[in-house]
Amino acid sequence: MEIYEYLIKAIQDTGTRHVFGIQGDYVLNFYNQLCRSKLKVINTCDEQGAGFAADAYARLTGFGVVCVTYGVGGLKLANTTAQAFAELSPVLVISGAPGVSERKGNPLLHHKVRSFKTQLNVFREMTSAQAVLDNPDKAASEIDRVIRAIHETKRPGYIELPRDMVHAEAGLPHAYKEELPSKDKVSFDEPLNRILAKMVSAKRPMIIAGVEIHRFNMQLCLLKFLKRCGFPFVTGILGKSVVSENHPQFVGVYAGAMSPDDIRQAVENSDCVISIGDMITDLSTGIFTQCIKPENSIIIMPDNISVEGSDYRGIDMKEFLKAVTAALPGPERPMQPIGRHILKPFIPKKGRRITMDRLIECLNTFLSDDTTVIAEPGDPLFGSLDLRVHASKEFISCGYYASLGFAVPAAIGVQFALPNRRPLALVGDGSFQMTGMELSVAARYKLSPIVIVLNNGGYGTFRPVLDGDFNDIQPWRYAEIVDVIGSGKGYTVSKEEEFVSALKAAGKNKSSPTLIEVRIKKCDCSRRLKMLAERLKKRI
Amino acid sequence: MEIYEYLIKAIQDTGTRHVFGIQGDYVLNFYNQLCRSKLKVINTCDEQGAGFAADAYARLTGFGVVCVTYGVGGLKLANTTAQAFAELSPVLVISGAPGVSERKGNPLLHHKVRSFKTQLNVFREMTSAQAVLDNPDKAASEIDRVIRAIHETKRPGYIELPRDMVHAEAGLPHAYKEELPSKDKVSFDEPLNRILAKMVSAKRPMIIAGVEIHRFNMQLCLLKFLKRCGFPFVTGILGKSVVSENHPQFVGVYAGAMSPDDIRQAVENSDCVISIGDMITDLSTGIFTQCIKPENSIIIMPDNISVEGSDYRGIDMKEFLKAVTAALPGPERPMQPIGRHILKPFIPKKGRRITMDRLIECLNTFLSDDTTVIAEPGDPLFGSLDLRVHASKEFISCGYYASLGFAVPAAIGVQFALPNRRPLALVGDGSFQMTGMELSVAARYKLSPIVIVLNNGGYGTFRPVLDGDFNDIQPWRYAEIVDVIGSGKGYTVSKEEEFVSALKAAGKNKSSPTLIEVRIKKCDCSRRLKMLAERLKKRI
Repeated sequence: MEIYEYLIKAIQDTGTRHVFGIQGDYVLNFYNQLCRSKLKVINTCDEQGAGFAADAYARLTGFGVVCVTYGVGGLKLANTTAQAFAELSPVLVISGAPGVSERKGNPLLHHKVRSFKTQLNVFREMTSAQAVLDNPDKAASEIDRVIRAIHETKRPGYIELPRDMVHAEAGLPHAYKEELPSKDKVSFDEPLNRILAKMVSAKRPMIIAGVEIHRFNMQLCLLKFLKRCGFPFVTGILGKSVVSENHPQFVGVYAGAMSPDDIRQAVENSDCVISIGDMITDLSTGIFTQCIKPENSIIIMPDNISVEGSDYRGIDMKEFLKAVTAALPGPERPMQPIGRHILKPFIPKKGRRITMDRLIECLNTFLSDDTTVIAEPGDPLFGSLDLRVHASKEFISCGYYASLGFAVPAAIGVQFALPNRRPLALVGDGSFQMTGMELSVAARYKLSPIVIVLNNGGYGTFRPVLDGDFNDIQPWRYAEIVDVIGSGKGYTVSKEEEFVSALKAAGKNKSSPTLIEVRIKKCDCSRRLKMLAERLKKRI
Repeated sequence: MEIYEYLIKAIQDTGTRHVFGIQGDYVLNFYNQLCRSKLKVINTCDEQGAGFAADAYARLTGFGVVCVTYGVGGLKLANTTAQAFAELSPVLVISGAPGVSERKGNPLLHHKVRSFKTQLNVFREMTSAQAVLDNPDKAASEIDRVIRAIHETKRPGYIELPRDMVHAEAGLPHAYKEELPSKDKVSFDEPLNRILAKMVSAKRPMIIAGVEIHRFNMQLCLLKFLKRCGFPFVTGILGKSVVSENHPQFVGVYAGAMSPDDIRQAVENSDCVISIGDMITDLSTGIFTQCIKPENSIIIMPDNISVEGSDYRGIDMKEFLKAVTAALPGPERPMQPIGRHILKPFIPKKGRRITMDRLIECLNTFLSDDTTVIAEPGDPLFGSLDLRVHASKEFISCGYYASLGFAVPAAIGVQFALPNRRPLALVGDGSFQMTGMELSVAARYKLSPIVIVLNNGGYGTFRPVLDGDFNDIQPWRYAEIVDVIGSGKGYTVSKEEEFVSALKAAGKNKSSPTLIEVRIKKCDCSRRLKMLAERLKKRI
């Protein structure tokens, strides 16, 4: 089996059906083989778009692939791969490269930076495993090693394929499906018993469900646990939609001081907070304004269980949660009723200029079981915390690494990952100017994402913190972009009733992209951002 | 003096007047100070655009600056900075960063990847010097050190400014203007005498002028040398326009087998080839098809002189060339006449579909003393080798690292660098889809670049090598983009006379950008690319 065949087979074995990328001469031959395989290759406008699309795809399917050329392709993925690393998105980066035989004597081949190792060194910083397939005998095992590391760590991996190795014979048999060596089992009787005791005596318990539940595929496990204990739960920003927000025990999204009072009190006044797979980051905690007493707190993370301040390491999170669920007596006593954020019906007020908060209220009535929301960092994300998402996997955002330019290419990735779902991207005008033209990919592949451009005349998220010309951008006629890319419907709205009718039309247009430019006031922002900006102001 | 003041003053002392970038919360405070300073801050659509603009600016002025936020900003510059490194473009990258006090305990702050050193480690791979200004006492000397390294190496440098250091007092006095310690002088009598002997006896001498002449500011030095010796000269691809191509001794651009026969023979049949500051890369030599015998060859590079195969290291290129010029007896004997590529006048044939080669011929009649051509890698660059450029600094291209997406943002950088010049960008449709929307920056700042989109329905440069769907892209209505960005004139042409009139109109429109989409046939390409493709085919 030649190296390219082995690599393509290894990708197919992960269940992945799509590869995002742009070709280039160092990857041309392998790219050509990809295109002839059963994998569908999706060409984006810029490599950056391919990286973001693969990231979104990986978040939803468990594995994403991006394939580009050396240097000028690979290094354009530094930021998107860094984001996948930071947010545990399992993306495989494949880069073509100069042939092994061409590298002799260290010539100045085009796309080379400092040395032939520059790109590898860059990716060492942002991937969990790396391989340069310069030795055919080892190629198969190297491919296996990188893919295994991606599965285990849920972080990106990097494979560099010199162009003269594409057709070299891969030495070893396809070993990818081999059983992984099982980890030494660590006894967890002590933390288990302590947690059970704490749960049984809890008067105002609360569960925080985090993003790692999704990354480690523990949604069902969590649902069983919730059912068994009957406790109410919140999610963090990153964990939003880890299970359906229509779940009867769901209280809302908790983000420290960025949370509405009812949610904040429900969490912070709890005498038993069980946090499962929740990353504690500055944005997710309203700049570390979460206020949970360690003595009331149980933290369950992939490799560490912490009970009232004592740490137990090396315990598998999933096995542990299953054991807790099995050991629970069941919800025998009624829980204290928890105040739950109630969705108001949206009735547009005629002639009224739409605001961020009203737009979110309106969207809540539009979201259906098949909508997946992608929220760009900044106010699209903060505003979205008030969205009630229907099922799991229906909300994605880079709520920690927070790279602008994510939402539009991510919407492409989402629709390939879940062809029966409708992506709805919420994106600021500043972010849209970075990568919004990737909507062209939706036009090309006949996708139907709905892109809502929140036009507040620039980088609105920064205005409440520090304002100046540097927050302004060139005004575009966003709705006309569908004409430039040759497909889709475009709307420009500023009033509530206009937004409602554009949204209705978008819902019906299932054959091409829809772009709705919403002109909100320059000074308008969501209530959540107002809370956060007050905090940020004090730090900058 | 506070650190931000010192840094701004140090930038101003380089003579730079503009900074390209996008703000973000980790850099917001410094960015605000930049905007209040005498430096003009240019906001691009995406950080990638800022990086390319600063690169082009640096190539023309000797110093460029790009300023962005941490992680999501900085890592988007990995590719543009790699290009600046590979092609010796002196760019200073300034990145905001989390405050020193915030980093304690290694919290998950947004935009962080693996550790707070990730971004620094990435930039170590593609800059000549790096500094994290986390110690106020050393900040001034660290700033000096990085800027000095940029000047000395002509390669990029990296400064990371933690946000709580912006207003810290910089400990040391402003030392940037201090004299550099002089290098030990190396005697160069031996290579000098050998070169003189060779030059005097040469029957068919030829000079190859390379890009480093420009980077090390040696144009005047070269002109004196040319005048004194009277030898004919060619340039490499990278060195194109290092001095005016109207110079009477100029023969053409030499690129191995990619050169027209007359130029190739003039170089390869020479008995004394003097190559000055020419980078020997695969693209610049038509994939290493240059054919110059070492025994006839003299190579003068920044840190090495090579005469007929013997190397002399540690000699300053500029001093050496001056010494050779001074020692020359002067052009006493008449040189053999050298065939020179003659420009044909362009007469459009009515109704005739325009081709790449004809387009270049037409452009030759349009170029004036105030046009600066920016050629995107690929066929725009290869075709441009037949352009006759008027003065020095009138042609720029990333002819070695060859990153697509360069030309449009570079045109922005060019017009800020040389406000009296008119940038003319030649860009493929594939490249345009990567970064073409940066034309918005031209609209915003009332610039007047002329952007010629060579629309051949995709990645035409690859078609002669290996064709497939992967070379196709979504067709855009490029000319309508000026409507989207709210300023400029757009034209779509496919016939020779249409191109001529669009070009004339563009020449007259000096108040806004002009975009001319030229629809050439899918299979059409320049004669130079045809030569190269034949070579590439054999390698892939």
